[in-house]
Amino acid sequence: MRKGLHMDTLIAKARILIEALPYIKTFYGKTVVIKYGGAAMIDETLKEEVMQDLVLMKYVGIRPVVVHGGGPEITRIMEQMGKKVEFVEGRRVTDKASMEIIEMVLVGKLNQEIVAAINRHGGTAVGLSGKDGGLLTARKVVDSKVDLGYVGEVFKVKPDIIHTLDRENFIPVIAPVGVDAEGQTYNNNADDVAAAVAVALQADKFLLLTDVPGILRDPRNPDSLLSTLPVSKIEELISQGVISGGMLPKVRACERALTGGVHKAHIINGKVSHALLLELFTDKGIGTQLVVKEGSEP
Amino acid sequence: MRKGLHMDTLIAKARILIEALPYIKTFYGKTVVIKYGGAAMIDETLKEEVMQDLVLMKYVGIRPVVVHGGGPEITRIMEQMGKKVEFVEGRRVTDKASMEIIEMVLVGKLNQEIVAAINRHGGTAVGLSGKDGGLLTARKVVDSKVDLGYVGEVFKVKPDIIHTLDRENFIPVIAPVGVDAEGQTYNNNADDVAAAVAVALQADKFLLLTDVPGILRDPRNPDSLLSTLPVSKIEELISQGVISGGMLPKVRACERALTGGVHKAHIINGKVSHALLLELFTDKGIGTQLVVKEGSEP
Amino acid sequence: MRKGLHMDTLIAKARILIEALPYIKTFYGKTVVIKYGGAAMIDETLKEEVMQDLVLMKYVGIRPVVVHGGGPEITRIMEQMGKKVEFVEGRRVTDKASMEIIEMVLVGKLNQEIVAAINRHGGTAVGLSGKDGGLLTARKVVDSKVDLGYVGEVFKVKPDIIHTLDRENFIPVIAPVGVDAEGQTYNNNADDVAAAVAVALQADKFLLLTDVPGILRDPRNPDSLLSTLPVSKIEELISQGVISGGMLPKVRACERALTGGVHKAHIINGKVSHALLLELFTDKGIGTQLVVKEGSEP
Amino acid sequence: MRKGLHMDTLIAKARILIEALPYIKTFYGKTVVIKYGGAAMIDETLKEEVMQDLVLMKYVGIRPVVVHGGGPEITRIMEQMGKKVEFVEGRRVTDKASMEIIEMVLVGKLNQEIVAAINRHGGTAVGLSGKDGGLLTARKVVDSKVDLGYVGEVFKVKPDIIHTLDRENFIPVIAPVGVDAEGQTYNNNADDVAAAVAVALQADKFLLLTDVPGILRDPRNPDSLLSTLPVSKIEELISQGVISGGMLPKVRACERALTGGVHKAHIINGKVSHALLLELFTDKGIGTQLVVKEGSEP
Amino acid sequence: MRKGLHMDTLIAKARILIEALPYIKTFYGKTVVIKYGGAAMIDETLKEEVMQDLVLMKYVGIRPVVVHGGGPEITRIMEQMGKKVEFVEGRRVTDKASMEIIEMVLVGKLNQEIVAAINRHGGTAVGLSGKDGGLLTARKVVDSKVDLGYVGEVFKVKPDIIHTLDRENFIPVIAPVGVDAEGQTYNNNADDVAAAVAVALQADKFLLLTDVPGILRDPRNPDSLLSTLPVSKIEELISQGVISGGMLPKVRACERALTGGVHKAHIINGKVSHALLLELFTDKGIGTQLVVKEGSEP
Amino acid sequence: MRKGLHMDTLIAKARILIEALPYIKTFYGKTVVIKYGGAAMIDETLKEEVMQDLVLMKYVGIRPVVVHGGGPEITRIMEQMGKKVEFVEGRRVTDKASMEIIEMVLVGKLNQEIVAAINRHGGTAVGLSGKDGGLLTARKVVDSKVDLGYVGEVFKVKPDIIHTLDRENFIPVIAPVGVDAEGQTYNNNADDVAAAVAVALQADKFLLLTDVPGILRDPRNPDSLLSTLPVSKIEELISQGVISGGMLPKVRACERALTGGVHKAHIINGKVSHALLLELFTDKGIGTQLVVKEGSEP
Repeated sequence: MRKGLHMDTLIAKARILIEALPYIKTFYGKTVVIKYGGAAMIDETLKEEVMQDLVLMKYVGIRPVVVHGGGPEITRIMEQMGKKVEFVEGRRVTDKASMEIIEMVLVGKLNQEIVAAINRHGGTAVGLSGKDGGLLTARKVVDSKVDLGYVGEVFKVKPDIIHTLDRENFIPVIAPVGVDAEGQTYNNNADDVAAAVAVALQADKFLLLTDVPGILRDPRNPDSLLSTLPVSKIEELISQGVISGGMLPKVRACERALTGGVHKAHIINGKVSHALLLELFTDKGIGTQLVVKEGSEP
Repeated sequence: MRKGLHMDTLIAKARILIEALPYIKTFYGKTVVIKYGGAAMIDETLKEEVMQDLVLMKYVGIRPVVVHGGGPEITRIMEQMGKKVEFVEGRRVTDKASMEIIEMVLVGKLNQEIVAAINRHGGTAVGLSGKDGGLLTARKVVDSKVDLGYVGEVFKVKPDIIHTLDRENFIPVIAPVGVDAEGQTYNNNADDVAAAVAVALQADKFLLLTDVPGILRDPRNPDSLLSTLPVSKIEELISQGVISGGMLPKVRACERALTGGVHKAHIINGKVSHALLLELFTDKGIGTQLVVKEGSEP
Repeated sequence: MRKGLHMDTLIAKARILIEALPYIKTFYGKTVVIKYGGAAMIDETLKEEVMQDLVLMKYVGIRPVVVHGGGPEITRIMEQMGKKVEFVEGRRVTDKASMEIIEMVLVGKLNQEIVAAINRHGGTAVGLSGKDGGLLTARKVVDSKVDLGYVGEVFKVKPDIIHTLDRENFIPVIAPVGVDAEGQTYNNNADDVAAAVAVALQADKFLLLTDVPGILRDPRNPDSLLSTLPVSKIEELISQGVISGGMLPKVRACERALTGGVHKAHIINGKVSHALLLELFTDKGIGTQLVVKEGSEP
Repeated sequence: MRKGLHMDTLIAKARILIEALPYIKTFYGKTVVIKYGGAAMIDETLKEEVMQDLVLMKYVGIRPVVVHGGGPEITRIMEQMGKKVEFVEGRRVTDKASMEIIEMVLVGKLNQEIVAAINRHGGTAVGLSGKDGGLLTARKVVDSKVDLGYVGEVFKVKPDIIHTLDRENFIPVIAPVGVDAEGQTYNNNADDVAAAVAVALQADKFLLLTDVPGILRDPRNPDSLLSTLPVSKIEELISQGVISGGMLPKVRACERALTGGVHKAHIINGKVSHALLLELFTDKGIGTQLVVKEGSEP
Repeated sequence: MRKGLHMDTLIAKARILIEALPYIKTFYGKTVVIKYGGAAMIDETLKEEVMQDLVLMKYVGIRPVVVHGGGPEITRIMEQMGKKVEFVEGRRVTDKASMEIIEMVLVGKLNQEIVAAINRHGGTAVGLSGKDGGLLTARKVVDSKVDLGYVGEVFKVKPDIIHTLDRENFIPVIAPVGVDAEGQTYNNNADDVAAAVAVALQADKFLLLTDVPGILRDPRNPDSLLSTLPVSKIEELISQGVISGGMLPKVRACERALTGGVHKAHIINGKVSHALLLELFTDKGIGTQLVVKEGSEP
Repeated sequence: MRKGLHMDTLIAKARILIEALPYIKTFYGKTVVIKYGGAAMIDETLKEEVMQDLVLMKYVGIRPVVVHGGGPEITRIMEQMGKKVEFVEGRRVTDKASMEIIEMVLVGKLNQEIVAAINRHGGTAVGLSGKDGGLLTARKVVDSKVDLGYVGEVFKVKPDIIHTLDRENFIPVIAPVGVDAEGQTYNNNADDVAAAVAVALQADKFLLLTDVPGILRDPRNPDSLLSTLPVSKIEELISQGVISGGMLPKVRACERALTGGVHKAHIINGKVSHALLLELFTDKGIGTQLVVKEGSEP
């Protein structure tokens, strides 16, 4: 009798696999660029779940490309090495010595942790910085009142190395470090790098993992989530203060991805277990979906 | 609040997808030959579930090849056309007119129903008979006391057309009709055809859908299921009467597949929902697994 | 002495092979869609000759694609199964049960006979219905005064499976059965299917085998054959009654092929031995050639 | 009425094409090395017929490779340039100046005439000497009583350039000039070069065009032709004087081809129209067929 | 101590290799058509150096294509064969017999010498005439007051055979012999053929080896070399008499190459050792560079 | 006059390029694994020269694969971060925190500097650690008297990612960090990693850059250099004390490479300018060459 019960459980699980089939079909062969950062990069359980999601995505025929940030870990190690940490308008003031530390942490620590974790879950990841294969060409950000030092912005993506890895079924994991023609290294905003990579690959989806449920009309009320936002409405929401603070650059990154040809951009909550699968494999998805114009397809 | 609950359900479902990951990895790129027949080919719900399983298998990187039987439908249409139906030792006596009807039913009706059903579920199937691409060369079965007419046995499989379809991600669906060098058509046992195809493809798995739970030590006791059976023990079980009747030719087909180089053969219960997924995506599988020697890997 | 004579005969035969060379060059690598039907599908000698022509075409570098009809055999088997046969304006009234029989006869009998015959002559054919690989999407014909049932028309051809077979040198043989998105099967006019396939493949030639010498100005006078007909003259000839009856839909199929991009369409006499070779391998060809405009090349 | 008659003639011709089909199938994709020389290289009509045969062979899927000799034309031009012509045991004494003339005639005249003739008949030939792509490495023949000068023998064939041309459907036409490691040019026997090329390509057939019907038991009696000769009988026939004179080196070339792995070698009469087609496209072939052992297949 | 000195010499040599790196990068994968003629084809040392340059070019990733002339050698052999040699306005009057000799010398002697020399230096060359692979279609030059006989001009280049050889890393060496549709052979100006080939290949560079340093403002003063010449200035320099005599057709060939899409054309001095490398691997190059318009890149 | 002088200089340089041709031919398409470390990784001029050599190698058809060490930089940064640095028998005691720092320096700093430098010189490098693509599987070294912590040894190389990069002409640059099945990171000896990679790639050459001229019979006498050393003599030289200290593990790495199938191993002096080119492009090479047995080819 317990046997029968057990069998029923297994059949119920098989049915759930079958429920995923329409989504698997929809995204088969599609490129999805994921900006990985925030709590999902710190909490051990969330980390594991992201890795599982990425490997599953790969096995069901999706082409995930990961771009990660660095934040707290950089600060921690800079402090350990006795470097003063300073931010101006949310951007880290980056002198030469800081740039070296940032690169070591991003490329030599965080990137490699993600690569190893994906591999441990059965995928085959390859870590890239913007230097590898000449992937990201950056330049100094000069629009600031103060000199931010080696804070850069990407103005050219040469995606050959990503295509090379993709053809052989490797999962590319990108650290947002860029280099200019003279070989000077720059620290770039990871959201912007992810958007630029998504545009260069003409990705089908751009998923931005954050620590909030999406864009909320009222930040104190999670029920006020905007589930869809056409780019045409962005300026209005900024002027109303609905989009502000840390959300503003994220929305701008999505906007750049969409105007550059990416089909859909999503700001989702990385604190939710299996957020990537929930976004891809449910009808409604989660978080806020940004679209070029209202009424476009999922 | 209900939102939260709903989210928990979705996360639970995502976890079930993740649970499937180790099995997906194991069977990625592997060829699985499925003998499709019995109740799973008659009951509408079971039919749908088999189609879903096949399409899911394809999307997660498995290469399913389907060989189907025909049984009751052939009898029904023969009777409708006024043909007498006669069996000798479980094999249908097949005169020229019967052979024509059998071929029409197998190739023009049942095969096409399966093809259409797979396509409706999002796969892309192509129906084949043994004539297509010279797939199956048959000869008259002569080991019988009575002349069975056009009952044949396959002695050559030319799998080029299957490889061609596989390279382009089509799912081959094979009707067990063969032809000899003179162009004479034969009706072949579908279990045998499936085994021969599995050998020709050097398949990783051969799944035989039946209407029983597997090989039972005591046919009245479903708890007496033999979960693994090394080929070396087959003769003993036959002499003990454990393997007999309709199970005997199925075990023989599995034996031929295994001695021909197929890694695993499974006799499973097609009356169970999603029997194919349960076999592939659970540790224990279902039914009886036949192996070359005891202790070989799953 | 007889030896010498014999040698002369052989040399004369070699010269005839050499005479074929310019035509072989002209059609090397070209796609030719053949609508196969009528007497050439019934008379045993004509049948053999068509198969020989198809295999020779393949060996000298032409890419033949065969679409066949069914006519009399369908009626015969329907009657054998006790179904009433009814036509309205040349189209078979097709209820659900009739559709099943039609499909069995087309796909499970006639198509397989052609496949086996080509293979017996040294080609390698693969039979296809419109369901295989999602080749033909059909919809119900609704322009009739009476409900014809499952009489359909093809509105989408997905030629992937034909290209797949062509790359590996298989000869595709197509039964004119289509299916709609819901999986409902339709019986389609074979001339129309052949024209649609020719357009989808952007074939170089469309050869329509009929039981008459071509379009005759005076049906009682075979010397009144129109050897070339520009599509611009079709309406005029219809209004004059020169094109009428069974010829009308055949001319319409040719017209659709030509306006869809096929280079040449030919209505030829399938009652003539080796009609396909005669059309391809002689300067004048046989039958009526339809062209987009007068003066276009052979 | 004449029309009908005319149609009958055309149908008769079509039947002859169909008669060729079994031979076309047999040789499809096969490599045939042809030693071209003698009358067939002098008589204008025979020349044209050889070219036609070569082009037809190519179009029906055979891979012809031509090796030609030079004989009379070399003598003619040497005399025109005031060079003394001298032979020792059938081999031309070749000083430095003669070698230059021989190379010019073989590579710059005869080879180019064949190339142009094939192209004029619709093939696409490319002329090669043993220098092109390092095809033939030769060394001085030293087994003679007198110093023959630059008479060489091929001891290495590097067939890369032939494979390159074959992949793109060019017909290679080879002049039997070789070169040693120091760059010294040698004049090689064309029969030997053809045999060496046939071995290097592991050709299916080696056809040696001569001016006689084949090996005759009695040279005055054309009815005494040996239609098949196993290599094991060669020594016996030499000792009997049946194989002697100019036939001896030709038989030796065939022997080398066969022992080197070529399936069949044929000594055929180039004075017969379309000798190549007659050999390939008739059951009995023409001339003498040399085989490794009696009873091997055509 | 001498060891140290020796090491310094080696290091100095390594530095020179490294100096070549920017040029190697610039021309990597580029097609360079070289018109080879004049002193560099006669003087033994210069010949060797050209061969070395060609092989080095190939090994560092450049795609050299050689077109050669014939001049003095043709005259020498014609005289040896007792043919009268006559020129009208710098063009050789060419009757049928002369044409035969010219072809033999160009294709059977000079071309083969170059092929053998390249191979001896470690490249793998294949000699081509305009007949091989239908490379050059020519027609009779009719713009002359006198009938020049078989003096032709190329009006069609079919570069397939060059692409075929290039894909497999062979170096094509082309003799400027062409053929018309009827198979008539023509003697073409090698500069013109080289320009036509450069256009057909859309070459990056066209290098014309001459016996002068380039275009000199004052022919008696080598310091008056024009290092760059935009095509727009050609007519002016002709009217001034700066471009005249033998230089005129060479400038015209360059002009045709440039207007046909070739990036750069260079008239260089073949009497200088390693002229090809000097042109490619130095900033200023040597000789006169012709460009579409002033200021275009190297 | 100065012009002439200048031209002579250029020609002399061209001759030096030509002198390199035989070496370029020898190594065309060959894989050369370079262990990069020591002074050549610290001195700015030497660094630049190594990068130039690598890029030149790539452009002349060689396939360089770089494995680098880290030494002094690791110590410097560990000290900066307040970590105690300790060595036992030449191996760094590596606790968890040290391992993190080592990885950051190797992968995030030194590796990226090499990648950027190669790219700046016109190559296209991609940095790899042993984690990327699962390249290096390591395990804890346990043969030591003390627990060295995370000092590892590579026991599996999965070279897929190197082959992938090679096919697309990227230069792989490998940091000697490995990972075990549980995801634990290990610090591996770079000489050993380079040898293991050379074996996995079945490299033609393994070049080990050191700070000494090679193996010296008498360490104080540079003239006592052993230019060639068969592996059979290694034990003898160790027992004689000729091979000892820091040279011992380097000789062992070479030995492992050679017994694993690499053709040649060379211990060369990275303090010499362009040491890589000198080794490859001179007859004698530099440093000590280790061979499987005496008398093997260069």
